Amino acid sequence: MGNDATLSPAQEARIRQSFGAQSMMATLGARLVGVARGQVRIEAPILPGSRQQHGFAHAGLTFAIGDSAAGYAALSMMPEGHEVLTTEMKIHLLAPAKGDLLVATGRVIRPGRRLVIVQADVHALEDGRESHVAFLTGTMIPLAP
Amino acid sequence: MGNDATLSPAQEARIRQSFGAQSMMATLGARLVGVARGQVRIEAPILPGSRQQHGFAHAGLTFAIGDSAAGYAALSMMPEGHEVLTTEMKIHLLAPAKGDLLVATGRVIRPGRRLVIVQADVHALEDGRESHVAFLTGTMIPLAP
Amino acid sequence: MGNDATLSPAQEARIRQSFGAQSMMATLGARLVGVARGQVRIEAPILPGSRQQHGFAHAGLTFAIGDSAAGYAALSMMPEGHEVLTTEMKIHLLAPAKGDLLVATGRVIRPGRRLVIVQADVHALEDGRESHVAFLTGTMIPLAP
Amino acid sequence: MGNDATLSPAQEARIRQSFGAQSMMATLGARLVGVARGQVRIEAPILPGSRQQHGFAHAGLTFAIGDSAAGYAALSMMPEGHEVLTTEMKIHLLAPAKGDLLVATGRVIRPGRRLVIVQADVHALEDGRESHVAFLTGTMIPLAP
Repeated sequence: MGNDATLSPAQEARIRQSFGAQSMMATLGARLVGVARGQVRIEAPILPGSRQQHGFAHAGLTFAIGDSAAGYAALSMMPEGHEVLTTEMKIHLLAPAKGDLLVATGRVIRPGRRLVIVQADVHALEDGRESHVAFLTGTMIPLAP
Repeated sequence: MGNDATLSPAQEARIRQSFGAQSMMATLGARLVGVARGQVRIEAPILPGSRQQHGFAHAGLTFAIGDSAAGYAALSMMPEGHEVLTTEMKIHLLAPAKGDLLVATGRVIRPGRRLVIVQADVHALEDGRESHVAFLTGTMIPLAP
Repeated sequence: MGNDATLSPAQEARIRQSFGAQSMMATLGARLVGVARGQVRIEAPILPGSRQQHGFAHAGLTFAIGDSAAGYAALSMMPEGHEVLTTEMKIHLLAPAKGDLLVATGRVIRPGRRLVIVQADVHALEDGRESHVAFLTGTMIPLAP
Repeated sequence: MGNDATLSPAQEARIRQSFGAQSMMATLGARLVGVARGQVRIEAPILPGSRQQHGFAHAGLTFAIGDSAAGYAALSMMPEGHEVLTTEMKIHLLAPAKGDLLVATGRVIRPGRRLVIVQADVHALEDGRESHVAFLTGTMIPLAP
């Protein structure tokens, strides 16, 4: 995330405002921890209320932050006033999401006027060890104002 | 969901117990409202804390109940003691998930000893009108005890 | 494929002309055997040159006719002069594609001005017996003239 | 593809033999041009008979060599005597596949005893310029002898 990747304060504010307006992110305890042009990072603790039947992170949590990281990565490359919608997303769950924290990194693979192709990786942190628990690939559509 | 589709009380209890152990389902207010052999239905209100930035259901909610409905549909066809894991799932988001309630119906397309192929549809209910907001297709793997 | 589904002769001609211009369809021996509004059927023999290492149909054949059937189903719902492009497609391979003939049926799940969501099923015929060998779900984009 | 990635002559022979037995690869003019542990490269000219209606490579060609490169990457990590089957594969078509030659590179993302998660990228070469035309992500299952 070098200088070329820096967003203007207005662009970053737009992303932070949209994120802040997603009540689901607050419910999941998710935080926007990195915003650059074409790359966004979201973290979420694996809260007691975000688990599946074995105490690991629920796939719904992994998907929610992976999809949001990918979506905001797409939004970071769009002109002022645009919004973005996921039209399809595939998630591969690679390993049980065990630990304390999930970190999702979304990025743009192919920007476009009509479609933006995105990817995201999700890692779990347990006692300082990181494991790759999921990756996502999907399609976003820009919505003009 | 005719007679052929009826589960034994033990099988149904196993699914209800697993569902009850997923704290994420409680966080989202999701309820298991139909369980038959190869087909499972889950409902969730669109709670104030389950929304995206426009007040519609967050894709994380739609995914969570669609994936769970598909997973329990797979589990309903497995021998006693088995469990099931999602390995990959693709979701198409067809329309904004507006309304009061989401209903996810999961079903088994191809049962197998090593893999189970599943689908799910998610509908939104708004003022008694139903709209098809998402469909999912994915792969589950059985875990022997 | 009732009366409502009937295409005008001009619309059908447009689809047949595009299909005829795909040299890959000729290489694979594929034929357009049914064209209706939102639903298209393509057949291909499992030629000696279309096989994988066990003599079954190669996944490339199954994909090619499934994707084409879905794409022409999308095209059948578009205004005069438009074309259609696949942007993403997922295929589930359910069973080995054994036999003499594959039949792909594509249909439109959600038409749209900007995106068309499609599905296709592929069946194999062996000694008159039909087996479901694949299904596909994907996204098409309309191209205006 | 360093030293760690080197296959034994027997392993490489097994992959070359399986590839040679796929008549579809010969029909498409595809060649196996790189085989290492977990990574396989396949090239195919865009033959006159492998095209869609605008003269670009047909998505069936792009899929066929991407899927095969991913599958042989998975096979390269399996014990003697095993085979591999694609169970599902998603392809994103990023740009028209214009040019003379397609090059597919498949690799293993997550090896496993029961499932192998794979990816592939496909590039087109036109007058020495390379463009990224597709990427694929999918699931392979090992078949024991």
